[in-house]
Amino acid sequence: MPEQKKMVEAITSMDVDFAKWYTDIVKKAELADYSPVRGCMIVRPYGYAIWENIQRILDAEFKRLGHENVGMPLLIPESLLQKEKDHVEGFAPEVAWVTHGGSEMLSERLCIRPTSETLFCEHFSHIVKSYRDLPKLYNQWCSVMRWEKTTRPFLRTAEFWWQEGHTLHETAGEAEAETLRMLGVYADFCENTLAIPVLRGIKTDKEKFAGAVSTYAIEAMMHDGRALQSGTSHYFGDGFAKAFDIAFQGRDNTQQYPHQTSWGMSTRIIGGIIMTHGDDNGLVLPPAVAPIQVAVIPVAQHKEGVLDAANKVADRLRAASYRVKLDDSDNSAGWKYAEYEMKGVPLRLELGPRDIAENKCVIVRRDNRQKYFVSLNGLEAEIEKILVEYRRSIYDKAIENRKTRTFTAGSVDEMIKISEKTTGFIKAMWCGKLECELLIKDKAGLTSRCIPFEQEEISGGCVCCKEPAKSMVVWGKAY
Amino acid sequence: MPEQKKMVEAITSMDVDFAKWYTDIVKKAELADYSPVRGCMIVRPYGYAIWENIQRILDAEFKRLGHENVGMPLLIPESLLQKEKDHVEGFAPEVAWVTHGGSEMLSERLCIRPTSETLFCEHFSHIVKSYRDLPKLYNQWCSVMRWEKTTRPFLRTAEFWWQEGHTLHETAGEAEAETLRMLGVYADFCENTLAIPVLRGIKTDKEKFAGAVSTYAIEAMMHDGRALQSGTSHYFGDGFAKAFDIAFQGRDNTQQYPHQTSWGMSTRIIGGIIMTHGDDNGLVLPPAVAPIQVAVIPVAQHKEGVLDAANKVADRLRAASYRVKLDDSDNSAGWKYAEYEMKGVPLRLELGPRDIAENKCVIVRRDNRQKYFVSLNGLEAEIEKILVEYRRSIYDKAIENRKTRTFTAGSVDEMIKISEKTTGFIKAMWCGKLECELLIKDKAGLTSRCIPFEQEEISGGCVCCKEPAKSMVVWGKAY
Repeated sequence: MPEQKKMVEAITSMDVDFAKWYTDIVKKAELADYSPVRGCMIVRPYGYAIWENIQRILDAEFKRLGHENVGMPLLIPESLLQKEKDHVEGFAPEVAWVTHGGSEMLSERLCIRPTSETLFCEHFSHIVKSYRDLPKLYNQWCSVMRWEKTTRPFLRTAEFWWQEGHTLHETAGEAEAETLRMLGVYADFCENTLAIPVLRGIKTDKEKFAGAVSTYAIEAMMHDGRALQSGTSHYFGDGFAKAFDIAFQGRDNTQQYPHQTSWGMSTRIIGGIIMTHGDDNGLVLPPAVAPIQVAVIPVAQHKEGVLDAANKVADRLRAASYRVKLDDSDNSAGWKYAEYEMKGVPLRLELGPRDIAENKCVIVRRDNRQKYFVSLNGLEAEIEKILVEYRRSIYDKAIENRKTRTFTAGSVDEMIKISEKTTGFIKAMWCGKLECELLIKDKAGLTSRCIPFEQEEISGGCVCCKEPAKSMVVWGKAY
Repeated sequence: MPEQKKMVEAITSMDVDFAKWYTDIVKKAELADYSPVRGCMIVRPYGYAIWENIQRILDAEFKRLGHENVGMPLLIPESLLQKEKDHVEGFAPEVAWVTHGGSEMLSERLCIRPTSETLFCEHFSHIVKSYRDLPKLYNQWCSVMRWEKTTRPFLRTAEFWWQEGHTLHETAGEAEAETLRMLGVYADFCENTLAIPVLRGIKTDKEKFAGAVSTYAIEAMMHDGRALQSGTSHYFGDGFAKAFDIAFQGRDNTQQYPHQTSWGMSTRIIGGIIMTHGDDNGLVLPPAVAPIQVAVIPVAQHKEGVLDAANKVADRLRAASYRVKLDDSDNSAGWKYAEYEMKGVPLRLELGPRDIAENKCVIVRRDNRQKYFVSLNGLEAEIEKILVEYRRSIYDKAIENRKTRTFTAGSVDEMIKISEKTTGFIKAMWCGKLECELLIKDKAGLTSRCIPFEQEEISGGCVCCKEPAKSMVVWGKAY
């Protein structure tokens, strides 16, 4: 099996060079490719199918909660981007500018949306007149562009795909509840669907979104101990509404400004899936978003009846709504095993003449190569059971990694010492002052990931200035 | 019912001013709105829901036929756009140019994709090496941008949403078959799903896509007799493959160039739905893509048991997979009737105390206001039957309009005479020469819509030069 060997050798081991391991997987599993435009990726069919599964599941949840999808323009006039002061300061340095339409120079520059708050606000200002028009619960699936200097497929690219929710509410309380509700949707999606454990928390002022009153985030830990901000939910107060003159007549007939939120999750999460679950043989995909959930491999397929039986099994599983690929190509069984391991297919189903004679098949789990000898009677239910165990296992493995790599520090020196030795989450108390946050970044090379909702009390005051602490912060190195 | 009156009055009659009628519907039915960027529209929730239904149905069909979705970059470097001579000549004059990223001027201008042939080709050149890599059957859902001077929502906007299929094949025969297959998918979708009759045919050389060997199209006739090109499918031969150096090792070990297709359908078709089926009361939507298929209106809803019964009926219909809205707002029944007529909801279901007592309801069709008194036993099946009749009726009405407005001409003078009197399709013979096509355009203000697959023989030779005719062409005025 020379091809199998070649393929397995082609992935750099994650312990040798994690960054190279990541890029190898993206390339070899055919998730994405580089494009002729610097920093922009091509999402290939296998990667896009993962994204479509993510979209399908999230979109159904958004709609269940009453959100409606819209299509907003790609471009934002410069004057519109400038309407909210903090927002333009945050985004103007990293946008792409359109200056010409055909051969004519435009009278005003247009930027390619880095995010669409300004467009939604402008639209809201036209359509919201009365409290009866509220809430507005809008969402958009699209790509956005931020002119990043250094890029890596999925993790940081000039263009990326995402959804951006934008909602408008009668009261601050309602908007705050929506902000938290959508953070919860993201957290549940990561944990239950993607098997990625996340911390839920609020960002420090320094790390919050440009123009937000408060930014909430879910933070996942990658296999190498670095953090991935996996979804954010922002509460805007009425700042944007005032800047864009979105006013409505309230129940008491007075003119009021609505309170606003926005929230987003992007193709970046595919990078999170790779780095949370992958291993030296390639991808390990959560069943809910795997483009192929079961790879059916006929063994000795030239023998009479094998392909027929394999097709029957594949059709049965498809009828039970599994995503199945039957590989009856000329490649050796060994090559196929390596190929579907590389592609992270949760289960491999082997079926040969002897299995058929015994009315059974062999199922092999991708995550730990555990083998199951399964009777063909009740196959569907058995697969369901194995997939549930599989999801639980990869989730537990990620929890275990996070546990091993989570530390507590009582001083900045301790934070430095831990950081010199390893990478992970460091819990430490904080007084709330920017100086301390900056000093920790400067000395230990760590950024505040979030102030988790689940707080712990570590004695000794702020890890930096020793003054009374306001909260426990989780620090780390982030993608 | 002052509100109902106001609403009905607010739509311009289609016979008075068809263009104004169209814009009124787009605005009042809340399909789309203008945006702060000239020529770019906002697709509002109700319009976007129609687009999502179109996407869902087409996407399932593409996938059933083996196509895979991908995500290609938004931007194209100028040098890449220039690789295929005809293609760049066709598109360069109407693209938007990005010249700056953040505060830096780019070393090469990038255009926002007007279509993505060049990006697909560049990618294909990297991933296709052998005949084993073929065919490649790719599709992308995205928005594209063409810097149009005059724009109208859905029909012609600088930015529009679409899908673009791009396929690569081993032989010319396979690629030609794919081109026709996908034209067939579009035609069947229009006729069966959208109830829009279409002509299937090939474009003249003058009207074909920039860079194509041949362009096929489906042409629909709008209520006012003007044509709407509703979908196109292009055969490229190996011209792009040669320009982009996409070569593969063939079965005979020689180096060969693959043959290519592309095909697209866009949000423009929503304009087609409006102008094919709509009337002076607003939209008339085909059931398959209507965001709401049945509007349940409780009558005398303050009376005991009415809302309960209405909710039960709505839930029953939802369980049977209908898209249902129960309107229990304070608005009058009359206002609601007008509102859902405006929005083109196929069926209105009225349910009042007497209906409940008699275990029945009243169903009113949007297209012709026909009333049905339906027993609540077997309601689902009855609705299915009425919707099938409804689709058939709106299709027949469109066929009837096309029949009434289709003419045959034996001379250019005749074509002019017909065009002065009315708008529609004019069948006339053509010799195949560009001069004649241009002369007809110049004298009669008509463009060749297509050379239909279903040819007829009209005696007298080319309608223009009287020389022997090659084919019958359908001429018209187009959106």
